[in-house]
Amino acid sequence: AADKGLLVMGPDCGTAVIDGVGLGFANQSQSGSVGIVAASGTGLQALTVTIDNLGSGITNAIGTGGRDLNQQVGGITSRQALDVLNRDTNTKVIILTSKPISSRSAMELIQVLHALEKPVVVNFLGYAPPAYQIGNVFFASTLREAAKLAIELCDKLDLSTNMKSDSQKNFASSQRYIRGLFSGGTLAYETLLVLRAFTTGVYSNIPIDESYKLDDHASSHKHTIIDMGEDEFTIGRLHPMIDSDLRLRRFQQEAADPETAVILLDVVLGYGSHSNPAAELAPIISEAKSLARRSGRHLEVVVLVVGTVSDPQDVVAQTSILRKAGAHIETNADEAAIYVGNIISGLNTTSKASLRPVVLDSSGQSLAAINVGLESFYESLIRQGAEAIHVDWQPPAQGKDNLMDLLAKMKS
Amino acid sequence: AADKGLLVMGPDCGTAVIDGVGLGFANQSQSGSVGIVAASGTGLQALTVTIDNLGSGITNAIGTGGRDLNQQVGGITSRQALDVLNRDTNTKVIILTSKPISSRSAMELIQVLHALEKPVVVNFLGYAPPAYQIGNVFFASTLREAAKLAIELCDKLDLSTNMKSDSQKNFASSQRYIRGLFSGGTLAYETLLVLRAFTTGVYSNIPIDESYKLDDHASSHKHTIIDMGEDEFTIGRLHPMIDSDLRLRRFQQEAADPETAVILLDVVLGYGSHSNPAAELAPIISEAKSLARRSGRHLEVVVLVVGTVSDPQDVVAQTSILRKAGAHIETNADEAAIYVGNIISGLNTTSKASLRPVVLDSSGQSLAAINVGLESFYESLIRQGAEAIHVDWQPPAQGKDNLMDLLAKMKS
Repeated sequence: AADKGLLVMGPDCGTAVIDGVGLGFANQSQSGSVGIVAASGTGLQALTVTIDNLGSGITNAIGTGGRDLNQQVGGITSRQALDVLNRDTNTKVIILTSKPISSRSAMELIQVLHALEKPVVVNFLGYAPPAYQIGNVFFASTLREAAKLAIELCDKLDLSTNMKSDSQKNFASSQRYIRGLFSGGTLAYETLLVLRAFTTGVYSNIPIDESYKLDDHASSHKHTIIDMGEDEFTIGRLHPMIDSDLRLRRFQQEAADPETAVILLDVVLGYGSHSNPAAELAPIISEAKSLARRSGRHLEVVVLVVGTVSDPQDVVAQTSILRKAGAHIETNADEAAIYVGNIISGLNTTSKASLRPVVLDSSGQSLAAINVGLESFYESLIRQGAEAIHVDWQPPAQGKDNLMDLLAKMKS
Repeated sequence: AADKGLLVMGPDCGTAVIDGVGLGFANQSQSGSVGIVAASGTGLQALTVTIDNLGSGITNAIGTGGRDLNQQVGGITSRQALDVLNRDTNTKVIILTSKPISSRSAMELIQVLHALEKPVVVNFLGYAPPAYQIGNVFFASTLREAAKLAIELCDKLDLSTNMKSDSQKNFASSQRYIRGLFSGGTLAYETLLVLRAFTTGVYSNIPIDESYKLDDHASSHKHTIIDMGEDEFTIGRLHPMIDSDLRLRRFQQEAADPETAVILLDVVLGYGSHSNPAAELAPIISEAKSLARRSGRHLEVVVLVVGTVSDPQDVVAQTSILRKAGAHIETNADEAAIYVGNIISGLNTTSKASLRPVVLDSSGQSLAAINVGLESFYESLIRQGAEAIHVDWQPPAQGKDNLMDLLAKMKS
């Protein structure tokens, strides 16, 4: 059906509101500026109702069926529905909600959302948000919060996004990976969490998912984030915030790897830390960058500087030394991770088969629906002034095979 | 050491700022109104720095060691540190951050936080927040967001909390559990997610954690939330939003159980749904409540009503019928879950051994510290004008046994 520009909703999807007409289970609400895509029926209804109760309204609310976002189906209906709302001129903000999904599906969807022009509020049930905001994508923990946030965003015309443009760096085709060398464990872990929005499969000595544990902490594999403050790096030596020797050597090792596109380092200032880390780092950064340049590569070096103006090292001077050496400076782990996340997702685009756009004519043509099964749904459609055909059908005791046959016939 | 009113920081804890004096790795920052408790060293530093960079400052920042919050240690130092900041008159808002912790530890800590008088911003790395706000507890996804939110909360004097007081209902001693009977799957799941802040071990046919899967979907066990829209309940019958027969019988079954304290139901209105659900529910609710009363029990019935004023059922009339039958009405799943969460956590209080308060005299007495190991940490202390004793010590290659001996001697 996707090939024909039609939207298949279901199975296990009983809900939509298109141009103010409710299909299946649906609530009558004011019209407004929020569009909803929901892989969850009551999620869609609760959002519609809360938005209405808060004094706003919706454009279209599209249920995709709870199974659309699992890995086998790949979210085809959700992607079509998002595309519809992205092109719909009345929709200012989109809400995307779903039942629990895998972290891979979540990441792939977030990448789809980043390509849209509108703000999107995401509520994936039970998913730990990588951040409050990544570019045009906002994360809410509950349906009510998603509704509230979407309404707030409708009123904000100038949406400041935190997606920094890459200004098209000259990476070589071999360069694909991020290598993060951290002295601060929490900074490393927060980076891993935020990078979930951009890629799956970041290897680490402190991975979120144990299947991405590095085999050998001394050598990186694909995307790698290392916490060098962990015991395996500090036995018999001082913490990397004081003694940068091991980290500097690892930096050179990563810089020489033709697969490395970005190196991310933290520099934690303050009492107890090295008295002048920039003086040690800067020459090694500029040398690595010029070595890469001579081999036809662009090596991006991002330094996360954590320090106050009152710290003994003088954060302004430290930052300026690092910047002169060619480093890009960030001051918060989440922002640093978003910066490098954008680079690596640009270098690792997976081309999904493009979908034929669904035409949802909102300029007056009345809705036509084929209702299969429940007669009360058909009566609701007629009551709302929509054109509808009713097909009498009852769920068979043996399961969903007949429904699949019927859907197969509709596709032909 | 806890018995002596002393705070043990560590092992794996190298950070604190007490009365403006940094211990170990620490940043010099402005003084302000935010107190920090961190089971994460660089988490503490990054928070201090970001708060300073945003133009605010901290009172005390207490590192507890990354291992304090695992289940064996039980967060003793964190609880002491929270108590210190709760009593500290200069601290207006507290931030609690930690490396990844178990959901049980998270829940126990959130319960501790609910007993504090101040707003607390929580950032547990990788933990999916149950909501944005539960009572005085706020959830942030990243360190930067936690810092920003804490500063915003310092400026809000009248903190409106969403903890509704229980007004001391007359539950019998047998009554301990919530029973949730949902027609909407997403509403059921969001309830499960929010209840993580109040209790562990909610059984369900759609559990968050598979070890809490109900053995028999037809009978509840302890805290139970059921999605009656799942296949096992709908084979051969209509969806519970249309046909409430099975749910009404289950309601009576739960109401008769002397262990049931609260029954939570959703009523989803709109096209496609039952035309007058309140008329069916109300008599059964009032009958169940009076039956319970005659057995010396108070049966709390909470109905989550999802519907707009334009829906065909007339949400105002539906709500009023249910309220007259004695039901407490909520309109959002997260708020309903917080309401019942407060009731069940009141009925299931686990008494933790109370801890002797740590005295942190902030009225002028200068800080005295014993520094073991790194001489540079000692020099930093002296430089900041603190009183300090240095004990020369180097980490042994064979591990942490000597340190444990030393700590044991300090305790005596």
